[in-house]
Amino acid sequence: MPGTNDPRTSRRGFLAVGSGALFCTIAGQRIALDQPGAAAKADAAAARVRRPRAQPATAPGAAPEDQLTFTTPEPQPGGVVREYWIQARTMRWDIVPTGRDQWHGVAIPGRTKFTAFGYQPMTAGFAAALAPPSIPGPILSAEVGDVLRVHFRNAETKVRQGLTMHPHGVKYNPEYDGVFLGDFTRAGGFIGPGEEFTYTWEATPDSVGVWPYHDHGPNHTLNTFRGLFGSIIVRAKGDKAPDNEHVIFFHSLLPGTTGLKAPFQCINGRAYAGNTPTLTAKVGEDVAIHVIGMNDDFHDFHMHGHRWRDPAGTFVDTPIVGPNEAITARFVEDNPGRWLYHCHVFSHQDGGMAGWYLVEP
Amino acid sequence: MPGTNDPRTSRRGFLAVGSGALFCTIAGQRIALDQPGAAAKADAAAARVRRPRAQPATAPGAAPEDQLTFTTPEPQPGGVVREYWIQARTMRWDIVPTGRDQWHGVAIPGRTKFTAFGYQPMTAGFAAALAPPSIPGPILSAEVGDVLRVHFRNAETKVRQGLTMHPHGVKYNPEYDGVFLGDFTRAGGFIGPGEEFTYTWEATPDSVGVWPYHDHGPNHTLNTFRGLFGSIIVRAKGDKAPDNEHVIFFHSLLPGTTGLKAPFQCINGRAYAGNTPTLTAKVGEDVAIHVIGMNDDFHDFHMHGHRWRDPAGTFVDTPIVGPNEAITARFVEDNPGRWLYHCHVFSHQDGGMAGWYLVEP
Amino acid sequence: MPGTNDPRTSRRGFLAVGSGALFCTIAGQRIALDQPGAAAKADAAAARVRRPRAQPATAPGAAPEDQLTFTTPEPQPGGVVREYWIQARTMRWDIVPTGRDQWHGVAIPGRTKFTAFGYQPMTAGFAAALAPPSIPGPILSAEVGDVLRVHFRNAETKVRQGLTMHPHGVKYNPEYDGVFLGDFTRAGGFIGPGEEFTYTWEATPDSVGVWPYHDHGPNHTLNTFRGLFGSIIVRAKGDKAPDNEHVIFFHSLLPGTTGLKAPFQCINGRAYAGNTPTLTAKVGEDVAIHVIGMNDDFHDFHMHGHRWRDPAGTFVDTPIVGPNEAITARFVEDNPGRWLYHCHVFSHQDGGMAGWYLVEP
Repeated sequence: MPGTNDPRTSRRGFLAVGSGALFCTIAGQRIALDQPGAAAKADAAAARVRRPRAQPATAPGAAPEDQLTFTTPEPQPGGVVREYWIQARTMRWDIVPTGRDQWHGVAIPGRTKFTAFGYQPMTAGFAAALAPPSIPGPILSAEVGDVLRVHFRNAETKVRQGLTMHPHGVKYNPEYDGVFLGDFTRAGGFIGPGEEFTYTWEATPDSVGVWPYHDHGPNHTLNTFRGLFGSIIVRAKGDKAPDNEHVIFFHSLLPGTTGLKAPFQCINGRAYAGNTPTLTAKVGEDVAIHVIGMNDDFHDFHMHGHRWRDPAGTFVDTPIVGPNEAITARFVEDNPGRWLYHCHVFSHQDGGMAGWYLVEP
Repeated sequence: MPGTNDPRTSRRGFLAVGSGALFCTIAGQRIALDQPGAAAKADAAAARVRRPRAQPATAPGAAPEDQLTFTTPEPQPGGVVREYWIQARTMRWDIVPTGRDQWHGVAIPGRTKFTAFGYQPMTAGFAAALAPPSIPGPILSAEVGDVLRVHFRNAETKVRQGLTMHPHGVKYNPEYDGVFLGDFTRAGGFIGPGEEFTYTWEATPDSVGVWPYHDHGPNHTLNTFRGLFGSIIVRAKGDKAPDNEHVIFFHSLLPGTTGLKAPFQCINGRAYAGNTPTLTAKVGEDVAIHVIGMNDDFHDFHMHGHRWRDPAGTFVDTPIVGPNEAITARFVEDNPGRWLYHCHVFSHQDGGMAGWYLVEP
Repeated sequence: MPGTNDPRTSRRGFLAVGSGALFCTIAGQRIALDQPGAAAKADAAAARVRRPRAQPATAPGAAPEDQLTFTTPEPQPGGVVREYWIQARTMRWDIVPTGRDQWHGVAIPGRTKFTAFGYQPMTAGFAAALAPPSIPGPILSAEVGDVLRVHFRNAETKVRQGLTMHPHGVKYNPEYDGVFLGDFTRAGGFIGPGEEFTYTWEATPDSVGVWPYHDHGPNHTLNTFRGLFGSIIVRAKGDKAPDNEHVIFFHSLLPGTTGLKAPFQCINGRAYAGNTPTLTAKVGEDVAIHVIGMNDDFHDFHMHGHRWRDPAGTFVDTPIVGPNEAITARFVEDNPGRWLYHCHVFSHQDGGMAGWYLVEP
């Protein structure tokens, strides 16, 4: 059915979905995110999503669970409140600021700047910026027994739509799930333009690990694909941080979401060595590199010159990383030099998903 | 080479295979299952597949292994025979019976009914139906030391082709493998229209777990993609079942197999919350949710508000699930409310692979 | 933008990358490897890649790590030097030498021979061939404490380009990484036509396992996709090898790399049962089947009639295998007969990724 962009009613649409290409559903409209102009279309649809009713218990099809009320959790004895102020806003973002791929020593032609969406860390009361918005957003940290109290502001006024922060790993009640659920949406699931909301999440014993957070509002697929994500690190009480710790996201910035002609396979919003994070360490350090998948692809993380035990005890150097899954490479550094790290899906590494790891003797 | 549907000799074919899209091989014909009319073409080819010779030992290229004869296993001391009567037949199946996506609160347009293939549980001797055929088929259960004796009938007379039941996880000899192997096919590998066959499978100590079964006859790719699959649960001797146990399949119902215009990303044959299984539990229950992949895609299972240990001891909330692989989320329920569960591949969740989990306080 | 093959500036390009299809970057040129004539184009670009400067420390952007010098490691006390002579060269290779798929009992039409690239084992000093070049190359073996000393020759004079051997799992310093890094390339990262280089790799305690090696020169994506890979097995000191051990690679030979019309889903360079390795074993043997992914797809390995523990202790029969990842199925053989083994991604098994496993009583 030529002339339609509806992936559900077109031949192309089938291929798009069948082969895993990207689309989203907003306000009853299904939008193929690999079409030119897809982001504008999805944003327009998202702007039409009405604020959900305040009382999910009155929604058609409501269940007894929709009548439950919840209290805001406090820290466990000995725990503390970890407070963050974070806002979401658009920003101009350069995927290849050097204009070059330093691995192959070649120029990357074409435009590489677009309007991204980022989480930005602020000082208390949103008084001032701690840093610019970025891809990924700030790392949130807690120990078991703490609560994370995250004051979130939807500071975006041009791209008008409900936004959220949805965390993995930590415990939360439905009010703090940060997910748009249509008629069943709870308070944290739709933060309109200019609005604020405070999420409270618990670091429980089974929260130990590294986790992503991301937008889960009505336009979450597009928004996470253009930068609205970050990470949470939860440690056991009193656990020492590694000497040297990095969180990297394997994701993509694609024409449908960026408006650029070229697709980019990215690490932390950048593509190609010299633009992606150049990680550094020193021989003897206890190094932890946490890798999180943040698109629809499956990846595997290869670090040249290094091996480590996976959680099952097997020595690995190329473990799989799925969407919104985190894996950790942890080792005592013993191998100085310039190393390449990359996704070992060849098309991903060739598309920019590679970077440098520099180890001082 | 325009005008051909042979994926091996056309440009499109390469893309189809190269990008993981679906095709099958039947009777020497290769059929791209993403083509309109593909199912009818594959069924016609499958109807031409001749019953394999009764004696694989006489096949060209036969090996000494093809001359082996096998006995039907009996339960171990203390074990029992678990007997099932199951037939396969086509049925009309509605992928979106409510016509709506209750998550986003929108209507799902277009036709959603098609002719599916399902396994149906019957009473002893196929005397009567225990339930309608369904996607997935019935759960088969055993303890270590038992044998599963599954009387299978190919009750489908319109779509004329050999069918089977091929199990994972349990032990079987080649007679009960349930796989079509051309000239080397054993008795259980081709059950013709109207015919019956009794499979005998052993629950051995290394069978403990949750496993799929599915058609593995000459047309197995198409048939499993339109519904011919189910699950087997094997427990250690005397092991208590969880208080609350669910088996869900992540799969797809695609235009080439359904004849519908839209592709659907499904859980247990349905797409979109309110149609997919609404799981329920109660605080304090020991909950086990088993997730099995049943298409060509890799998935990951996310349950909002919950975390659990994976088999290596890592806390997870979004583990990977591969084709015909099973993972289990097991936890003591402690978080009441309405929760979303979904595949965290964004295009899958946006295509219908999501559902509700309702937890009573 | 019709008429261009640049995946970064064409609509098709986006799909290619977005859906995971194959492309590579050579000498600043990005080449979609699913285009007819792609291999010739990539080879021409690779021939233009200049030998990197001898001193990476003088490169623009050089870091202190680029000034480091390294010594060649010797075995640990009690360890030995394991010496190999291996050359790389092109060869005519038949993907389906029998012309048939013995599983379905059908002929495979069309041409199946192409110019592949293979590693070839030689006698000391490259005096004579130990075997023809093959897909995969020879298995390299070591015990913990040993060093692997691999004399490598780029014996290919028609396809003129830098080649390497890049190992996984073993320890090496940057000189022996075997990776082309543009201006930062070390000695082992560009072995020109007719040249030789000796790699020295250490089998450390965390090297125990099975690992791939492959080309990582300027044209590595194309070269690994047409055969330049092999395996390394490292055992603990004195560890007994399994009675029966096999290494199989799940990969693909695609029109863009072969020039053939048909794509093939391969095991060890062959497609379809009767062409792929026919594995054999005997009841009572300790069997290990190592499976390594060597393309851009994710796979899962299913062996009919068998189950085994994965490293986390879970019983499995269809574990996931990612690109350049190795998994091992290890069990004591107890089930005689003819068995099918295959990737359980249906399109892969239907495209040739299946073979026989014959077990003698």
